[in-house]
Amino acid sequence: MRMKAISLFMGLAVAAVGASTLASTVRDEPIKPIEPYVSEHPEKVQLGKKLFFEPRLSMSGIISCNTCHNLSRGGTDNLKTSIGHKWAAGPVNAPTVLNSSLALAQFWDGRAADLQEQAAGPIQADIEMGMPHALALEVLQSIPGYVDEFESVFGSREITLDMVTAAIAEFEETLVTPNSRFDQWLLGDDDALTDKELAGYKLFKDSGCTVCHNGPAVGGTSFQRMGVLEPYQSTSPVEGRAAVTGKDADRFSFKVPTLRNVEYTYPYFHDGEARTLEEATDIMGRLQLGRVYEEQEINQIVAFLKTLTGDMPRLTLPMLPPSSNDTPAPDPYAD
Amino acid sequence: MRMKAISLFMGLAVAAVGASTLASTVRDEPIKPIEPYVSEHPEKVQLGKKLFFEPRLSMSGIISCNTCHNLSRGGTDNLKTSIGHKWAAGPVNAPTVLNSSLALAQFWDGRAADLQEQAAGPIQADIEMGMPHALALEVLQSIPGYVDEFESVFGSREITLDMVTAAIAEFEETLVTPNSRFDQWLLGDDDALTDKELAGYKLFKDSGCTVCHNGPAVGGTSFQRMGVLEPYQSTSPVEGRAAVTGKDADRFSFKVPTLRNVEYTYPYFHDGEARTLEEATDIMGRLQLGRVYEEQEINQIVAFLKTLTGDMPRLTLPMLPPSSNDTPAPDPYAD
Repeated sequence: MRMKAISLFMGLAVAAVGASTLASTVRDEPIKPIEPYVSEHPEKVQLGKKLFFEPRLSMSGIISCNTCHNLSRGGTDNLKTSIGHKWAAGPVNAPTVLNSSLALAQFWDGRAADLQEQAAGPIQADIEMGMPHALALEVLQSIPGYVDEFESVFGSREITLDMVTAAIAEFEETLVTPNSRFDQWLLGDDDALTDKELAGYKLFKDSGCTVCHNGPAVGGTSFQRMGVLEPYQSTSPVEGRAAVTGKDADRFSFKVPTLRNVEYTYPYFHDGEARTLEEATDIMGRLQLGRVYEEQEINQIVAFLKTLTGDMPRLTLPMLPPSSNDTPAPDPYAD
Repeated sequence: MRMKAISLFMGLAVAAVGASTLASTVRDEPIKPIEPYVSEHPEKVQLGKKLFFEPRLSMSGIISCNTCHNLSRGGTDNLKTSIGHKWAAGPVNAPTVLNSSLALAQFWDGRAADLQEQAAGPIQADIEMGMPHALALEVLQSIPGYVDEFESVFGSREITLDMVTAAIAEFEETLVTPNSRFDQWLLGDDDALTDKELAGYKLFKDSGCTVCHNGPAVGGTSFQRMGVLEPYQSTSPVEGRAAVTGKDADRFSFKVPTLRNVEYTYPYFHDGEARTLEEATDIMGRLQLGRVYEEQEINQIVAFLKTLTGDMPRLTLPMLPPSSNDTPAPDPYAD
């Protein structure tokens, strides 16, 4: 569960902006600073990290959560749409796992309420990890190192899917990226941003981007239609939120993506069709706001967007416990 | 280049076995302890680590060295044979990268003289990463973070394949696993092994295994025919060393694999057909030594083999610099 870590947060704010300025002086802006996350369950986080990097949760034995949500690359795979079991093409662009705990729901269409519910999906999806949950649990149960660790964290030597997804979710809660230059500015450091970056933020806000891209994640707080003033042209077959609600009004409505670390999370949009921040900014202006930005304006906004890159989680690569003789072998060629 | 790190090594020995015993008392055995590796080029190691974890060295943008030589899993992928670009099936089992610097040559057939020569192969091989070297270099050259880092390490902003492979090799040199329980015993600690493990080692040595599995890597010091006293039955089409030498006498001759961390590097043999250490030990006894081990003997040898697990490298996950607008996009579907 989320611990607000106020004292650490205050300490950071003090360190960042000098002892005379406190976190209570956070600027009144639609974007809020990211707070560091301190888990009350560090053992659960460590187990979740192992599971996040665990290719044995896939049928092939080579795909892990980290394959598509690569923590060396801003928590995504930088493909238009992801590649899964047997090189299957995924339907949507992999959203970053960084700061995903700050979103109102998970997946582009919000079909999972939270990170724990989300984590179960890709393991079993036949175009992602392709692994029946029962077999994934059989694999984990056959590995003595995991059985011991689940017992230590959950008090049981019988591993359940709920335990697996709870541990992964707890690890993912820690994947926040505080201390971006924009947050330093929000917390009172006038020198954290250049004039160009500030001009970009002013334009971003004044032209209406913050109506959707707001809050600590600079997004993730609502579902919005892709293509408000002009329709979005896409070859992607996905229909967005309507697949969850069944309402025609929700067609092409998607969760507003976070813009945190957006410099790292190219390409953009649910179909990954926008290669650059300049292209994405131009399209968003025209389709969502009915505004054609000048080249100079786009450059200013992009300069601002790059100030949203925060401190990436510093992670020690986990060592995964070896399989036993009883562990079901991976099958890369299984249907 | 390899620095012997004598003082650190001596320090370790002292710490492991007590101040009265020095490394000069290493037991006179065919297996030698692994020495820690301290690079004289830490910046080069850090760059090499990034490149080792860099999926943009593959055509698809999702396969890195670490995909098949997974450092969370003993430096291998634990598949019979590896999966590459577009889910291509590789011909041989991925050898562990751990302690690979200690081998007389690289690849199962020894076709690369050293780690630097090895590193160039899989990048370009169409069933591995599938990336022409020229395109790999174009990608790296387009990423400002890499250009700066190559300049810092090599003094040049023009990135060459030699620099890429030299950095990867320097990182791989650091991937040694000292301080296994067996090494503690070699260094004089009588209590490091159980009676069963010691009996297993005696049997391993007395029945002739150390004729090939010797030295600090417990292998990697020679090429040997697979199937000396009985032919090895395999559906694998690879012919081993003969592919390099052209000599018929070298058919089915392979580099003797390291047994360090062998508990982690399942499945076994060049074709990955032996699932367990028990099975591999049984087959080796019959085919190479003409000896049928009793079940109890196999259990003793396996107990010994598990004492060869050393300290795995503790690695911080690298953060890879973002692509620029000029970076060629990955193409998962390219032939």
